Amino acid sequence: MNDMTGLEMQHGRLFVGRLPYKKDLITSVENFCKESSIDMAVFSIIGAVSSVTIGSYDQKQQVYVSHFEKAPLEILTCTGNISLKKGNPVAHAHIVLCDEEGKTTGGHLFSDTIVFAAEIELQELIGNTLERVYDKNTGLMLWKFI
Amino acid sequence: MNDMTGLEMQHGRLFVGRLPYKKDLITSVENFCKESSIDMAVFSIIGAVSSVTIGSYDQKQQVYVSHFEKAPLEILTCTGNISLKKGNPVAHAHIVLCDEEGKTTGGHLFSDTIVFAAEIELQELIGNTLERVYDKNTGLMLWKFI
Amino acid sequence: MNDMTGLEMQHGRLFVGRLPYKKDLITSVENFCKESSIDMAVFSIIGAVSSVTIGSYDQKQQVYVSHFEKAPLEILTCTGNISLKKGNPVAHAHIVLCDEEGKTTGGHLFSDTIVFAAEIELQELIGNTLERVYDKNTGLMLWKFI
Repeated sequence: MNDMTGLEMQHGRLFVGRLPYKKDLITSVENFCKESSIDMAVFSIIGAVSSVTIGSYDQKQQVYVSHFEKAPLEILTCTGNISLKKGNPVAHAHIVLCDEEGKTTGGHLFSDTIVFAAEIELQELIGNTLERVYDKNTGLMLWKFI
Repeated sequence: MNDMTGLEMQHGRLFVGRLPYKKDLITSVENFCKESSIDMAVFSIIGAVSSVTIGSYDQKQQVYVSHFEKAPLEILTCTGNISLKKGNPVAHAHIVLCDEEGKTTGGHLFSDTIVFAAEIELQELIGNTLERVYDKNTGLMLWKFI
Repeated sequence: MNDMTGLEMQHGRLFVGRLPYKKDLITSVENFCKESSIDMAVFSIIGAVSSVTIGSYDQKQQVYVSHFEKAPLEILTCTGNISLKKGNPVAHAHIVLCDEEGKTTGGHLFSDTIVFAAEIELQELIGNTLERVYDKNTGLMLWKFI
């Protein structure tokens, strides 16, 4: 595989919304997708959290390492997508945050990240199924394209 | 409110453009929206600034704290939206910047941020009015969905 | 030029995809665009790299300064566009990365940035040609709008 592989998608429904106060960020997005029958989407969020769980993937050990931080932080960007894992819509998102001094941090976003306020734009994708399967090169669950 | 609340929108006009040299970033975007009769939109910007005013929201005191910095900085991401406040289109945007050593900073974006060069993608949203109203949980002006 | 200048575009094809393992990020995106006859687009990427070349534009000297770093880093955001330079589709992208401690860095993205895993959303733009030409204010190759 020498080139980018991909699927052409159609634009489905386009939503703008707010994530609920004091609730988990990823769970809120995934619940909305389940209730709205959204299997595939891309989304973008700005806002603030009262705590966050972020991490990164150890490319050698092939495991995610994460840590929890309780602090008021701005969400400077949170970019993600929705696709299927074992038939359920799951979110994959990366986030950049900053504290009151503008000091930035970020990582792969995990649950146990509590929203203070968050505005989301979510574009549903319509087309062939985007399903995550085990990728032996990376040890990650990645999209498989034929 | 346990779940994400939102509105389904239609895709309006899609613009790509440049923000003017040595002018205020937010004012330029808001002026373009007023002149183009855009009430609701989402946008994304990359580029560079010669000075920036960024801050964060003090979740306890419920006030924004901001600071000004005069320095040549890259705009690594600037994600925002346009919605109505008292009938006028206003921008809400968060930004990530870096200096010449790649050191990042960021925050809620304020006016008195001067563009060196900036490329914008702006998607107009068509649908029920997105209006900001006072939210008592956070003290912020947030979108109200019925 | 006091205001944002821009072009209204039509939505072309929408792709989601993966960038190839151990290949150059920008080259992979540009090759996909050439093979798919895409002249103009906006895109967004999350994922991870095994090495990166980033930099910033020296606004006084009007030259790009870049540096290479070999390290496993998460791509927290990578926002970019495709437009024409001398008739060829070229990518302009800015990136935010973090290491295993969540420490962020970023900059203008250059080639010699090797993908570990990367998920891309790419929206083709259809309309009048977006072409980069020399801009005397900044010394950059920027879009010219009449």
